[in-house]
Amino acid sequence: MNSIDELRLRLRAFADARDWEQFHAPKNLAAALIVEAGELLEHFQWLSERQSRTLDEQTRSAVALEMADVLLYLVRLADQLGIDLIEAANRKITLNERKYPAHEVRGRSDKRHT
Amino acid sequence: MNSIDELRLRLRAFADARDWEQFHAPKNLAAALIVEAGELLEHFQWLSERQSRTLDEQTRSAVALEMADVLLYLVRLADQLGIDLIEAANRKITLNERKYPAHEVRGRSDKRHT
Amino acid sequence: MNSIDELRLRLRAFADARDWEQFHAPKNLAAALIVEAGELLEHFQWLSERQSRTLDEQTRSAVALEMADVLLYLVRLADQLGIDLIEAANRKITLNERKYPAHEVRGRSDKRHT
Amino acid sequence: MNSIDELRLRLRAFADARDWEQFHAPKNLAAALIVEAGELLEHFQWLSERQSRTLDEQTRSAVALEMADVLLYLVRLADQLGIDLIEAANRKITLNERKYPAHEVRGRSDKRHT
Repeated sequence: MNSIDELRLRLRAFADARDWEQFHAPKNLAAALIVEAGELLEHFQWLSERQSRTLDEQTRSAVALEMADVLLYLVRLADQLGIDLIEAANRKITLNERKYPAHEVRGRSDKRHT
Repeated sequence: MNSIDELRLRLRAFADARDWEQFHAPKNLAAALIVEAGELLEHFQWLSERQSRTLDEQTRSAVALEMADVLLYLVRLADQLGIDLIEAANRKITLNERKYPAHEVRGRSDKRHT
Repeated sequence: MNSIDELRLRLRAFADARDWEQFHAPKNLAAALIVEAGELLEHFQWLSERQSRTLDEQTRSAVALEMADVLLYLVRLADQLGIDLIEAANRKITLNERKYPAHEVRGRSDKRHT
Repeated sequence: MNSIDELRLRLRAFADARDWEQFHAPKNLAAALIVEAGELLEHFQWLSERQSRTLDEQTRSAVALEMADVLLYLVRLADQLGIDLIEAANRKITLNERKYPAHEVRGRSDKRHT
């Protein structure tokens, strides 16, 4: 069982134990996910790009927990929709490799950058 | 090597081949992540909660790719910051288990629901 | 002078007095705006649509201040970019009126709804 | 009648003509608003702060329409909730003036910057 599957089962048990399945409509989870993404971005909004590459330990630790929140909602949403996150992510990288050939986009900021 | 680690290495190679490391400041990745979270939410914004639980196959497939985008930026950001996503996510679930005891919050929508 | 112009001048004076112009790059303001939009959405994420139409007074008051934050960053961003918000908004409504003819989209949720 | 009031009435007529009131629950409007805020931020995500201060005319024009979208949902949401946006915004500036005294926060990026 991979680590995402373990999170998936742990989150399912967490929701079941609290009878929160009723609130976990995909619409609500997608909203909760972007709210957490906002809390993550908040840490960076007034930093320069350079500063964002060298966070102090306290900020880095807070950022890690915000990222955890995003991942948890993502995993929970995938579970509700029956989506295999890892498979979708690998498929998307393959699509991006074709869409952005290295020799065409090298060093250019006017292209997407996943 | 777990599946997140595989994504991490694949994304690193992807960025290196395109010389996009320069754009991948954590600040920019956190911004890109929330942009993708917005594209994800867009699919649900006018659906009822009930409708969001029964997506047609075309929408579900599009949603899977938006979720992939969120995960890819999350993994890339974690790589740039030296954060172990899976460890942080498990730590966060443990924190939530203590913060929201099942017998206190069962079935209540006025509590957070990770 | 319209009310948006008054806000614009008040915000400019606010930033000048604090020497915050240096942080108010459009990129940063657009990030700050979406962070506030996330704080706004947070109030609604676990509510049903029906519940969101009948907020208690405390929530409504908190929501009003989150909406104020969004507007303030929007006005500040428009000032930095030399954009006339009211003109742009009216132009956009006109575009939407043409794009979504009433007789074609009446009561349909599969169309955008500005 | 101020310019926000004019937008409010125009948007109300727009929704009425299309029978879209049913979709305009505050929850949905708050979601739609952040989706537009994401489309706005997308224009800036790979730009440096400096670049974001000097947009080319085509980008600036696209940005203006994204900002219009944010404003339209904000005005529509305020109408649904019976909130006076301009009053709330002025109240918020007054709160911020007290919270961030100029002599204490001058030139500091570790404080909020509305």
